[in-house]
Amino acid sequence: CKCLACEEVLGGVEVFGFNLMFKTSIGPGTQRTGYLRPETAQGMFVDFARLLRFYRDKLPFGAVQIGKSYRNEISPRQGMIRLREFTQAEAEIFVHPDEKNRHPRFQRYANYSMPLLTFVQQQKCEDAVTMTMQEAVTQDVIANQYLAYYVALTHEMLVSIGIKPERLRFRQHLPDERAHYATDCWDAEIKSDRFGWVETVGLADRTNYDLNAHAEASGTPMTVFIQYAEPRKVPRRRIVPNMGVLGKQYRDKAKKIFAALAESIPEKNGVDVDVDGEIIHIPPDLYEVKDEIVDIRGEDIVPHVVEPSYGIDRMCYAVLEQAYDEDEADGEKRTVMRFSPKVAPVQVAVFPLMTRDGLDTIADTITKSLHKKGLLAEYDDSGAIGRRYRRQDEIGTPFAVTVDYDTKENNTVTLRDRDSMKQVRIAIDKLPETLAALVEGDAKFAELK
Amino acid sequence: CKCLACEEVLGGVEVFGFNLMFKTSIGPGTQRTGYLRPETAQGMFVDFARLLRFYRDKLPFGAVQIGKSYRNEISPRQGMIRLREFTQAEAEIFVHPDEKNRHPRFQRYANYSMPLLTFVQQQKCEDAVTMTMQEAVTQDVIANQYLAYYVALTHEMLVSIGIKPERLRFRQHLPDERAHYATDCWDAEIKSDRFGWVETVGLADRTNYDLNAHAEASGTPMTVFIQYAEPRKVPRRRIVPNMGVLGKQYRDKAKKIFAALAESIPEKNGVDVDVDGEIIHIPPDLYEVKDEIVDIRGEDIVPHVVEPSYGIDRMCYAVLEQAYDEDEADGEKRTVMRFSPKVAPVQVAVFPLMTRDGLDTIADTITKSLHKKGLLAEYDDSGAIGRRYRRQDEIGTPFAVTVDYDTKENNTVTLRDRDSMKQVRIAIDKLPETLAALVEGDAKFAELK
Repeated sequence: CKCLACEEVLGGVEVFGFNLMFKTSIGPGTQRTGYLRPETAQGMFVDFARLLRFYRDKLPFGAVQIGKSYRNEISPRQGMIRLREFTQAEAEIFVHPDEKNRHPRFQRYANYSMPLLTFVQQQKCEDAVTMTMQEAVTQDVIANQYLAYYVALTHEMLVSIGIKPERLRFRQHLPDERAHYATDCWDAEIKSDRFGWVETVGLADRTNYDLNAHAEASGTPMTVFIQYAEPRKVPRRRIVPNMGVLGKQYRDKAKKIFAALAESIPEKNGVDVDVDGEIIHIPPDLYEVKDEIVDIRGEDIVPHVVEPSYGIDRMCYAVLEQAYDEDEADGEKRTVMRFSPKVAPVQVAVFPLMTRDGLDTIADTITKSLHKKGLLAEYDDSGAIGRRYRRQDEIGTPFAVTVDYDTKENNTVTLRDRDSMKQVRIAIDKLPETLAALVEGDAKFAELK
Repeated sequence: CKCLACEEVLGGVEVFGFNLMFKTSIGPGTQRTGYLRPETAQGMFVDFARLLRFYRDKLPFGAVQIGKSYRNEISPRQGMIRLREFTQAEAEIFVHPDEKNRHPRFQRYANYSMPLLTFVQQQKCEDAVTMTMQEAVTQDVIANQYLAYYVALTHEMLVSIGIKPERLRFRQHLPDERAHYATDCWDAEIKSDRFGWVETVGLADRTNYDLNAHAEASGTPMTVFIQYAEPRKVPRRRIVPNMGVLGKQYRDKAKKIFAALAESIPEKNGVDVDVDGEIIHIPPDLYEVKDEIVDIRGEDIVPHVVEPSYGIDRMCYAVLEQAYDEDEADGEKRTVMRFSPKVAPVQVAVFPLMTRDGLDTIADTITKSLHKKGLLAEYDDSGAIGRRYRRQDEIGTPFAVTVDYDTKENNTVTLRDRDSMKQVRIAIDKLPETLAALVEGDAKFAELK
């Protein structure tokens, strides 16, 4: 028994092909076969004409989509890393093939520096090289500005949600590893304690592969008309039949002869045209050859597509794994999720020291003022203060506000930092602004006065 | 040939059962059968124990979920109204069965008045009756405060996204129309020009049906321990065996006799216990009957569930259909989507009159300041101003700002209202605040100075 792919002989096992798409049937009676989508991307290619119209027939443009994709994995035994139903967020950026090195906002990342594990390094078993996006494009390490732009944007985004740079690498596909549609492809890989390096984002230049494939299958061209800055003068040779003579001589066949002549290339002694299989010789005196100069306004081109594709479940898993920490607080073991404030499910907890003497009312008012500022704030009055801190540490709440008896004296509260466990006193009316700045990263807790 | 449901004889057709769930198979080799979910609800019931822990073992609590559901519709021929893959948003509110008339925030809607088409009215072919939620609950029109709360909240929400009250009705299910699990059920129905009254939201008191069904199938109890305010004193009769005598007399069987005695109800002349099928008579001198008073701290109850279930695609369709309008502008027919500013995909368009003399730079700065205020603003400099207005009218943008040459003189711009097509001049620095108030409904265009 031989392996279907490499033809190696396998001992004592049955070999069969297996489609990784989930199959189902649609409608009653004579049922049609349907499949659950294995990636979200194709929906955006199918919508190409609609997107093009939405963007008023101009390149470049992009579409983003988030949703479930389905793959009937043979062995999904890695928790959230390999799911049969997973969440994918994809963007398709449609660009003129000649403009891939002219991203309009490339300057944003031209000097953004990050380690790149190129296929050359991999083949030599060398480490990643750190370089700017400008260098990467100039030295042909990344295929073009568009791809480099999304590689850098993805690096920046992953770090901003809490992925440690030393656990993040961008690895270029080896030439024999690339999908059939891609000219260059990079994976953002995140190192997991449990699963090793995990591919989490794929960034590919898919060229015009998908649009061509859909155009061919549907019979609908998927092109953009690109108008030239100036119309181009193009020489054209036109064959003008002598209608009168041809009409009289060939009658019923004349119309078909006109059409065939228009597409023929005449020689000195005339031209042979094929009319329904019959070869008819037309001598030079029955037509005129005119050489003209015509204006060509533009051309139809098939855009290329650069695609960043994010595995949302894997990103969530990586954020959770990297945020998990244990240390000590008040002489006891503390479990703490060190979430970046930007992704913490609760950004600020608000505690009244006691649920009496009006402290709870003040805490409730503060919670509402933080909600109004757009912060994810949670009021909690259950249990001792120490226990409430532990509870918020466990779910990764970066900041906690406590209303105590001093609050009633001087309108200040304590503001506590999850990671340093330090506290400062701060005026109630400065809380929303201060916390918004801390959450956005515009202020640091250690620098609060 | 007979109908499978009503046994009526059908002529010349084949009758077969048809499962409305999409079927597929999971994994390779010995494949397991899987189905696409026909509603999102059950996921939240399965998560009951986790949710209960998250809410610290206290009722009431709720969970919300949005996602795709799948039904293999036999005849999906009504556009977005009947889709085989549709978007559902559901909430499950878990509540103590004795507390269904004590919603903690019922006052919010106690005096909210709306037309209700009760099943009594329907049976008499009468019109809906308009009443407050307080009246509806007191007069037993709606089963309880929890259900009434979400009926009113749903009415308020649908009106806020642009559904005209005269095209919205809440219809109670007829007793024979209700699902097997529901004690009371209301549908929010929206009148469509094309499809008539369309069920768009379903609100049901599902009682403890789902939790009981899952508990039975899984063998895991789905209950909440409700602690009494004070422990309750409950009399209990205990049978205390005379261990010494019983042990000697019955040896190996003694242990089983002790257990059987503990659960028996003795009579005057003793008690017959069943030990592995053998009936053994135990006379009264071999045990003692003790009557005690014990403290019972609380009890395990199965919560009831109130569920609002929203058909998101149908809501979107209704908003689109009701927003569509045609009128006249500048002597020509105008197509306009009269979206509520809250749901308009673009809330403010910003136009420079010309793309020169710095007007475009000012318009760009304004657009960014509106983004910062959280508004969906779009810059557009393509085509004549009139054409740009038409384009925004067509996508339902409620407000448009135009930067003209006066702007450079006095820092004001024109602000135009989509519906009245009137314009006012307004200072640039007041724009973000004014537009936010207009979008939130805190200000009216007609009242701007």
